[in-house]
Amino acid sequence: MAVQTPSSNQIDGKKIAEELRARVGSAVKSLPQHPTLAVVLVGDDPASQVYVRSKIKFTQECGMRSVERRLPENASQDEVVATVRALNEDTEIDGILVQLPLPKGLDSDAVIEEIDPSKDVDGLTETSAGRLLLGKTGLRPCTPTGCVILAKAALGDLTGKNCVVLGRSILVGKPAALLFLEQNCTVTIAHSRTKDLAAICREADILVPAVGRAEMVQSDWIKEGACVIDVGINRVPNPAKPGKTKLVGDVDFPSAEKVAGAITPVPGGVGPMTIACLLRNTVLAACHRRGWETPDIIASL
Amino acid sequence: MAVQTPSSNQIDGKKIAEELRARVGSAVKSLPQHPTLAVVLVGDDPASQVYVRSKIKFTQECGMRSVERRLPENASQDEVVATVRALNEDTEIDGILVQLPLPKGLDSDAVIEEIDPSKDVDGLTETSAGRLLLGKTGLRPCTPTGCVILAKAALGDLTGKNCVVLGRSILVGKPAALLFLEQNCTVTIAHSRTKDLAAICREADILVPAVGRAEMVQSDWIKEGACVIDVGINRVPNPAKPGKTKLVGDVDFPSAEKVAGAITPVPGGVGPMTIACLLRNTVLAACHRRGWETPDIIASL
Repeated sequence: MAVQTPSSNQIDGKKIAEELRARVGSAVKSLPQHPTLAVVLVGDDPASQVYVRSKIKFTQECGMRSVERRLPENASQDEVVATVRALNEDTEIDGILVQLPLPKGLDSDAVIEEIDPSKDVDGLTETSAGRLLLGKTGLRPCTPTGCVILAKAALGDLTGKNCVVLGRSILVGKPAALLFLEQNCTVTIAHSRTKDLAAICREADILVPAVGRAEMVQSDWIKEGACVIDVGINRVPNPAKPGKTKLVGDVDFPSAEKVAGAITPVPGGVGPMTIACLLRNTVLAACHRRGWETPDIIASL
Repeated sequence: MAVQTPSSNQIDGKKIAEELRARVGSAVKSLPQHPTLAVVLVGDDPASQVYVRSKIKFTQECGMRSVERRLPENASQDEVVATVRALNEDTEIDGILVQLPLPKGLDSDAVIEEIDPSKDVDGLTETSAGRLLLGKTGLRPCTPTGCVILAKAALGDLTGKNCVVLGRSILVGKPAALLFLEQNCTVTIAHSRTKDLAAICREADILVPAVGRAEMVQSDWIKEGACVIDVGINRVPNPAKPGKTKLVGDVDFPSAEKVAGAITPVPGGVGPMTIACLLRNTVLAACHRRGWETPDIIASL
């Protein structure tokens, strides 16, 4: 079988995430103390366990301390809230991440609102969202931050670029729109009710599909030379391996990569950036909370 | 001198605001108690005094109680904060409005952050901004809400309309973008760094200039038949009365009204809506805080 080499217009998210983690590691070395990230895992969801293990591994690789709080599947709302509150009060903890989804019956929103905004490394609290909207210092959501870093890796300064974000979720679409706006892009938010989605997408210098619909974006939706940051991660049947599945993005990659000037693959694009941005947020949170100067190497995007 | 009759495509903000205030008044009558709006005025700025008087007048006209807290020009940060905190704790107060700008030397952001989000009728706190971004129940900023109401008065359902917001301020541009998105518009945020602003504006079914530059938007920036919601209020020399000034919007109204399908004048467009939306917010806040059902007549936009 021939070795597949990435075509030159692929944005290598894995490598860029690795570089960001290395920068986080260097930043950590320059700090007076090691920041600490606490992860709260409730229940036994296998996927969540994999994610948490991976977060812990990378946290430690960056030279930070990792703390884990595990609660049983049948933990009560009060128990989860008490766990978060104890982490809020623990001055040694810099970042708190509650692994989602929580088991059924628990109110995730209420749990997240308990997180001290200064430790909200996922950027999910109302206060963090408000700071993002108001352009104030605060912790930004990880996946949208990763999208901006990848676009900058491909294009450099984003000022004046037309950015079309496809999807208006609170986890990706809306915060991504605001982060690209902060980079001086002209930003359009398109969605399921948008008329002539293809025409709107074709105006984009930067196209950010984040809708969770496998291979919805066709090559004729993409302007020649545009930068495509595919946030979708969809599991679909694998035609090459009957009975098996594979991961695809929201973009029809094989056709799109012929048109795009730069494009993220799935997997290996946006995905790896999320944890790297979480680690960066943990350092930012530690510096802000403890009054340390934020190391230049991770200060700006 | 001939009597000027408004051309048929003018959106009469004064009348629509009057109708909204009447609805607020009816809503108030149906409540178990009268909501109370507290206004904090620091110093002697003449314009602020006019605004506050007008807010108090309309509050009372709607059948609500108005409470005023005046502090001297040289009030300290601590005194202003203490005033807000006392209003937070007063269970009879439903809404708190701190009249801006505060005198020099005071930290407005810090004062605003003191307001209990459940009483934040201006929708300016981080929490209110976060709830807007996250699509949660909360108090929305008044001027952008007024823009949406005016656009709906002209067009009805806004689903699928292309809305271009010109300007990205935290008071108008960004919240307006999110509110039009909530109405299922496809929303573009354009600004000073946007390339070919005119072409972007010409794509708009709804154009919302909010940049504060007198008559910047020319008629050839407007698509034939588009709805124009002009948020700008700019004072310029009045050529008809040498030595005097007049108010104009961000749109060159005389030429624009020939192209637009519907357009707000300045004054008499967006301006009057701001106070009407403040009054509506006061009722919404009272209902939410006190566990009253929100009267249908003001529940949705």
